[in-house]
Amino acid sequence: MSLEEKVLQRIRPSEKETAEIISTAERLKEKVRSYLSKNEYDIGVMLVGSVAKGTFLSDPDLDVFLIFPEKVPKQDMERIGLTAGEDILQGERMYAEHPYIRGKFDGLSVDLVPCFAVTDPSKLISAVDRTPFHTDYVISRTDGRLRDEIRLLKVFMRGIGAYGAEPNTRGFSGYLCETLVIFYGGFLNTVKAASEWREGVSIALEKKGPAMLGPMVLYDPVDPKRNVASAVHIDTFATFIAACKSYLVSPNEKFFFPPERSPLTENELRELSGGRGSRLVTVMFDRPDVNRDNLYSQIWKTRYAIARKLDSYDFTVLRAVHDMTRTKIILVFELERDVLSKTFKHIGPPVWVRSSASFLEKWKNNEYGGPFIDEGQWNVVAERRHRSVTEMLYDEAAVAGIGRDIIPETMELLGHDDTLTSVGKDLLTELLDPKHPWDV
Amino acid sequence: MSLEEKVLQRIRPSEKETAEIISTAERLKEKVRSYLSKNEYDIGVMLVGSVAKGTFLSDPDLDVFLIFPEKVPKQDMERIGLTAGEDILQGERMYAEHPYIRGKFDGLSVDLVPCFAVTDPSKLISAVDRTPFHTDYVISRTDGRLRDEIRLLKVFMRGIGAYGAEPNTRGFSGYLCETLVIFYGGFLNTVKAASEWREGVSIALEKKGPAMLGPMVLYDPVDPKRNVASAVHIDTFATFIAACKSYLVSPNEKFFFPPERSPLTENELRELSGGRGSRLVTVMFDRPDVNRDNLYSQIWKTRYAIARKLDSYDFTVLRAVHDMTRTKIILVFELERDVLSKTFKHIGPPVWVRSSASFLEKWKNNEYGGPFIDEGQWNVVAERRHRSVTEMLYDEAAVAGIGRDIIPETMELLGHDDTLTSVGKDLLTELLDPKHPWDV
Repeated sequence: MSLEEKVLQRIRPSEKETAEIISTAERLKEKVRSYLSKNEYDIGVMLVGSVAKGTFLSDPDLDVFLIFPEKVPKQDMERIGLTAGEDILQGERMYAEHPYIRGKFDGLSVDLVPCFAVTDPSKLISAVDRTPFHTDYVISRTDGRLRDEIRLLKVFMRGIGAYGAEPNTRGFSGYLCETLVIFYGGFLNTVKAASEWREGVSIALEKKGPAMLGPMVLYDPVDPKRNVASAVHIDTFATFIAACKSYLVSPNEKFFFPPERSPLTENELRELSGGRGSRLVTVMFDRPDVNRDNLYSQIWKTRYAIARKLDSYDFTVLRAVHDMTRTKIILVFELERDVLSKTFKHIGPPVWVRSSASFLEKWKNNEYGGPFIDEGQWNVVAERRHRSVTEMLYDEAAVAGIGRDIIPETMELLGHDDTLTSVGKDLLTELLDPKHPWDV
Repeated sequence: MSLEEKVLQRIRPSEKETAEIISTAERLKEKVRSYLSKNEYDIGVMLVGSVAKGTFLSDPDLDVFLIFPEKVPKQDMERIGLTAGEDILQGERMYAEHPYIRGKFDGLSVDLVPCFAVTDPSKLISAVDRTPFHTDYVISRTDGRLRDEIRLLKVFMRGIGAYGAEPNTRGFSGYLCETLVIFYGGFLNTVKAASEWREGVSIALEKKGPAMLGPMVLYDPVDPKRNVASAVHIDTFATFIAACKSYLVSPNEKFFFPPERSPLTENELRELSGGRGSRLVTVMFDRPDVNRDNLYSQIWKTRYAIARKLDSYDFTVLRAVHDMTRTKIILVFELERDVLSKTFKHIGPPVWVRSSASFLEKWKNNEYGGPFIDEGQWNVVAERRHRSVTEMLYDEAAVAGIGRDIIPETMELLGHDDTLTSVGKDLLTELLDPKHPWDV
């Protein structure tokens, strides 16, 4: 039996499990239909997502869409949709591009989402109106074999940490996995093809749409203006390619089921960093009360902004990681150094511009020597405003370009030793000893 | 009496001195003429340069040109010209663009230079054929007053270290000073105009020639294809502008006659560098047997090449100086640091290029952790090949792009402390406490 077959045996839901899930879904749909029958509008009920498409893994979510006629005003649609969800599921409101209800039904997670019955997915009213078309498309293009191949790709993506389009993962959505397997005709063919991908790869199952930016483009077969892979970040893209290359050379079930790592001890971490002579700094902010996905986008933005600032001041970032707890946002940076030379060459204006006069005036009594000319510009050896990384960040982090809801006044910094003693060992292990999941 | 008048009284040769110089020049010309009268060709003799133009300072050189008919073969012209010089002056051969003789006559330095009598300076055969036209041009455009103004500008240039087009100075030639004063109508007008110059200033006394690169362009009035200021480096250009700005604010005879500086002591130098936390390194090479001007070009090239190398390895040059003794070339650099962090982020190829396989193979057992992905590229925390500046230079100086006749195998390096004890204190003072000559 091939490795893929063995994996499939582990991940394909059993016939019994499948029957139960289908039956639960049917009962849910029936309950929703009967709830809605009292309503003045003619609202359709449709099971969408992986259960509808037959590409689900064990313990799937149920995605049920309430499909409103186009003529219904958007606020009516939202009000009726949310009330239905609250009444049927006793669930809570979630906010994607528009609100929906997340709850439980007979032990399964359920998303109950109102949308509009548009006739053409390129003419959608709300972003989720496309989903029913995606469901129909995948159902019509797959058979049992291909649905299993899709399951393999999803679990492979999950194993290598590339599964999911949400802002923290920046990876491959379920629908992207489905369209890739349909396009290439199977899991292994997808892996073989992806091992040869380069930045800018462009894939069209049906019509090719306009040129789009991003590491990869997969034109949505139901709406070629849209890139199904728009959430894929260059690093997730590269991780998938690297994993595919590696899998083809030495296939292993670790790609699908990476063993959990045990974090290194404080002493091991200290030795790792000490051995390479690097220095750590931790930047923490209070967690603002913002939607989780939105917040993760802001954390990535903050991480890049602070890394740029650290690099611009010559602390030189080797690596960075981030984490979020119930109350805190935590960023940890590994640096080449955390203390700078006392002075630096401050490059001023060209001699011939007007502002050179004020430069000369400002620096004429400079403690470290007067202005001198280099490459036609006034220069001066100036004292650094901040020599240590924490001094610099206290002064500069607020203007580095951090996420809009992240409040600079809540910033706390930990130097090298405090980072080693206080920050979670799993996060520090990820920082100081990063391993690909399939290498663990 | 104005400052300029006072300066002029010091620098203008007396009537007696002038008469003696003119008489010496006449006697030399007569001697050359009578020597050449035996020759088969009809060779003209012409006094050129500052004495001919009346713009000379005290103790001038005499420049006498032997003007050969165009039809004379170049090797005949050189042979006859050099033999004449050797016979008349017992001088030695010099090599500019073509050879000439430098010697002494009645106590004055003499250059005896063979050239061709071209009819149009744009159609020259050898580079010096233009010189007689320069001489005629300046004589025809100046009177006694303007010649004195030229003297002022030359001495001003000399005082600020910007006088001379030779490769070590990279400054303003005598002819450039002459044409500037003719163009602006006097010394002070030139200073006023130059205080407003910007990079790329373009000046045409007669016809404007084609666009040319460089910090400034002065189209040669006798040959507009040529830039009289082509030797002016951006830093000399900037120095002149800065000096002019400063002179207009506080005119002072120090601009013309900068007092000599006494070098700082070793302790003072050590404190200066220690105070700003900088580190010194000295790079020395044996002086190769090459024409002095050519060698200075190569020293500048070497200085820039090594500075680039130091910067690229993060040692970060604050300043540099150079010197040449009878046997050595000496470069000294002031650095932000002379020891680097043990490791650095080594950025490898994008994951999707073919060479990524060999990168992974090479680094898979890396002591400081395996490859990781950043911005779609493989990265690794790698040990630096060299941590100290001297280690780095021993490995890298030969391939930095040093001058072609400078032999990397002769390189000797001095670290911080050895530099302070062994290198000439005047050179270290110039490095660590640079002052504009007019500020001393």
